[in-house]
Amino acid sequence: MEDVGKNIIDDRAGLNEQSIVVVRDGEDPPEDCLAILANEARPLLISGHELGDVIGEAEILFVWPFAVPSLQSNWARAKRLKWIQTATAGVDGLMFQELRESEVLVTNARGVFESAIAEYTLGLLLMFTKDLLRTVRLQQACLWRHRETARLGGARLLVVGAGPIGREVGRLAQRLGVDVEIVARRRREGDPDFGTVRAIEELHDALGGADFVVVVTPLTEGTRGLIDRDAIRAMKPGAYLINVGRGAVVDEDALLVGLQSGHLAGAALDVFEHEPLAVDHPFWSRPDVIVSPHMSADATGWQRLATSVFVENLRRWRRGDALLNRVDKRSGYGGASGAD
Amino acid sequence: MEDVGKNIIDDRAGLNEQSIVVVRDGEDPPEDCLAILANEARPLLISGHELGDVIGEAEILFVWPFAVPSLQSNWARAKRLKWIQTATAGVDGLMFQELRESEVLVTNARGVFESAIAEYTLGLLLMFTKDLLRTVRLQQACLWRHRETARLGGARLLVVGAGPIGREVGRLAQRLGVDVEIVARRRREGDPDFGTVRAIEELHDALGGADFVVVVTPLTEGTRGLIDRDAIRAMKPGAYLINVGRGAVVDEDALLVGLQSGHLAGAALDVFEHEPLAVDHPFWSRPDVIVSPHMSADATGWQRLATSVFVENLRRWRRGDALLNRVDKRSGYGGASGAD
Repeated sequence: MEDVGKNIIDDRAGLNEQSIVVVRDGEDPPEDCLAILANEARPLLISGHELGDVIGEAEILFVWPFAVPSLQSNWARAKRLKWIQTATAGVDGLMFQELRESEVLVTNARGVFESAIAEYTLGLLLMFTKDLLRTVRLQQACLWRHRETARLGGARLLVVGAGPIGREVGRLAQRLGVDVEIVARRRREGDPDFGTVRAIEELHDALGGADFVVVVTPLTEGTRGLIDRDAIRAMKPGAYLINVGRGAVVDEDALLVGLQSGHLAGAALDVFEHEPLAVDHPFWSRPDVIVSPHMSADATGWQRLATSVFVENLRRWRRGDALLNRVDKRSGYGGASGAD
Repeated sequence: MEDVGKNIIDDRAGLNEQSIVVVRDGEDPPEDCLAILANEARPLLISGHELGDVIGEAEILFVWPFAVPSLQSNWARAKRLKWIQTATAGVDGLMFQELRESEVLVTNARGVFESAIAEYTLGLLLMFTKDLLRTVRLQQACLWRHRETARLGGARLLVVGAGPIGREVGRLAQRLGVDVEIVARRRREGDPDFGTVRAIEELHDALGGADFVVVVTPLTEGTRGLIDRDAIRAMKPGAYLINVGRGAVVDEDALLVGLQSGHLAGAALDVFEHEPLAVDHPFWSRPDVIVSPHMSADATGWQRLATSVFVENLRRWRRGDALLNRVDKRSGYGGASGAD
C-alpha cells in the first residue's frame, strides 16, 4: 500500500487508453485515493509544472489544485484533451478563455463539500448568535461577564447563491428554526425547500431583511464585487456578513467601512480576494471579524469523496454515458458551487 | 409604563388575597414583566434580604434569584406559604431540608430555557468540530494555517440527563445528523426521539462510545460528582466534555487531569462548582477549554417567558387546577431540568 504513490510516479512510460493524468496539489493525494484510482486506470501523478511533459497525450485530467497556470500556458499542445475533472467545487481558478471556448468538458466535485460548508457556516452563525467570540476574549482576560444572547431560531438568514452549497446551508439552518431566504440568478416559485427563490435583481431588498447574510455564490464576471458598498449599505443595521464562497464576490474595502461605521455587527470571512490574507490587513485584528484560512469545505475525508466522484464519472465516460456535475463553462456555474 | 416598578415597590401596605411576593434578583425584573404581573395580581417586589418582613403573610412566592438564603433562615415564620414558582430551571440553589419536607409546592420555569441551551450547546459542538477556538487564536497571531476539520454529521453525542433540556439538546443535534444517545435515571425503550434511553448504571459504557458528552442533569445528591475520575477515564480518547447543567455534577479536578493527560481533547464549561470561577483557576488559561459565565440559558426575552409561565400557573392556582412544572422536591427532578 505504501508503494502505490511511488509506483504511479515512476510510471512515465507513455500514456495509453487506460491512462489518466492526475495533477497533484503540493503534496500527493492520500494513499487511499491513489489506490482507488489505480483500481480503475493507470494514473500518472504529476505536479502542475510537469503538465507540459504530458499534455500532448493526455485525454483526461483529474485536477487537485485550485489553480493550474501551466494548463493555460500549454493549451496549444493539449490536442487530445477531452475532459477535466476537478477535486474542488469552484472552478474559477482553473478557467481561462481558450478552455471556456473549447469542446473540453469540465466537471467538478459537486456533492463533496456541501454538508461540510453548511456545518461550518452554522458554527459561525452560532458563534455570533451566542457571542462566543467575545466569550473567548473574556476568558483570555480571566473575566466573568454574564451576558444575555440571541436565539438562532427565528433569526432571518439570506443565502446569496442557490447552488448545491447555498441550498444545503439554507436547509441546515432551517432545521434549527432559522427563517431562510435565498437569492439566485433567476426568480422562481415553488422551490421544494425555500418556496420563493428571489432573483439577484432583488438582492438589495432581500439584504434589508436579514440578520445574517451568507455569501456562497461562485466567482464569475457577474458576481465579482456583488457585495459592494451599496449592498452593504442595504444590509440591516446590526447584521452579520459571512463569506464562505469566493473572496472577490465581496468588496473588502466596502465591508471594512461597513464594520468601522458600526453599521454591521460583524463578519466571518473564510475566503479573501488575495489568499493568504496579507499579515497587515485590518481584518486580522478586528474583534468583530472572524478570519479563517479558506477551510470551511475541508472536512477530513474530502479527498476520498472527491476521488469517488471522479471514479463514477470515469466509469460513465468509458460507457459513453453523460458525466455528472458538468460545469457551464460560459457562466462559470454548475456543479458543487453556484447560484442556479 | 416606567412607573410600574416604582408603584409596586412602594405598595407595602400589607398583603391580601390578590398579592404575590416577587423576590427579585439584584436588579428589578424588566418593566414588561412587571406590567404582566400587575395585570394579574398585586405584586410586591422585594429583595431576598427583605423576605423576613413579609414571609409571615406570603402565600405565593415568585422567585427570580437562583438562591434565596433568607427563605431558609425565615422558614419558621412562613406559616401561610403554599407555593413557590421559580424563574429558573434548576432549583438546587433554593432547596433545603425543611422546604423539601413541607407541603409547599415548588414549580419551575420548564419550557423557557430548553431551546436556548440546545442552540448554545450546538454552537459549542461546532466550535470544537470546526476547530474555531484555534482559528480565533491563530487570527490573533495573524497566522494563516489551513487545517482539515471534522464533520458534525455522524459524530456520536451522549447526553447525560433526559429531562426537557437534555431532550432538546439531543433533538437539535439529531437534526444536524448527529448520532445521539441519552442517559436517564431509568432505562426505557421506545422513546419517540431516541429509541432506547439508557440508565445511569450504563453511564460508563455509554461514555466510551461518544465523541461528545453533554452534561445537563440537575444537581441532586444522586448526580453530585457523577462525572468523576472513573467516568472521565471511561470517556473515549480525544472526546470532548460539555457542561451546561450544574458545575458540581463534574469533578473539576478529575476533568483537569483528563485534559492535562491529553486523554480528552477539550471541554466547554458554562457552569462551575464555585461561580464566578476563581481568577486563578487553571481552566481560564487552557487552550482546550472554553469557559463561559453560566449564560447558556439566557437568551434575550427569557424573563418575559418565565413570567408567562408563572402567570399561567397563577391562573391555574386560582381556578384550583393542577400546576404545571411541579418539581419532585425529594429527588430534585422535574420541570425544565432533569433526567426523568
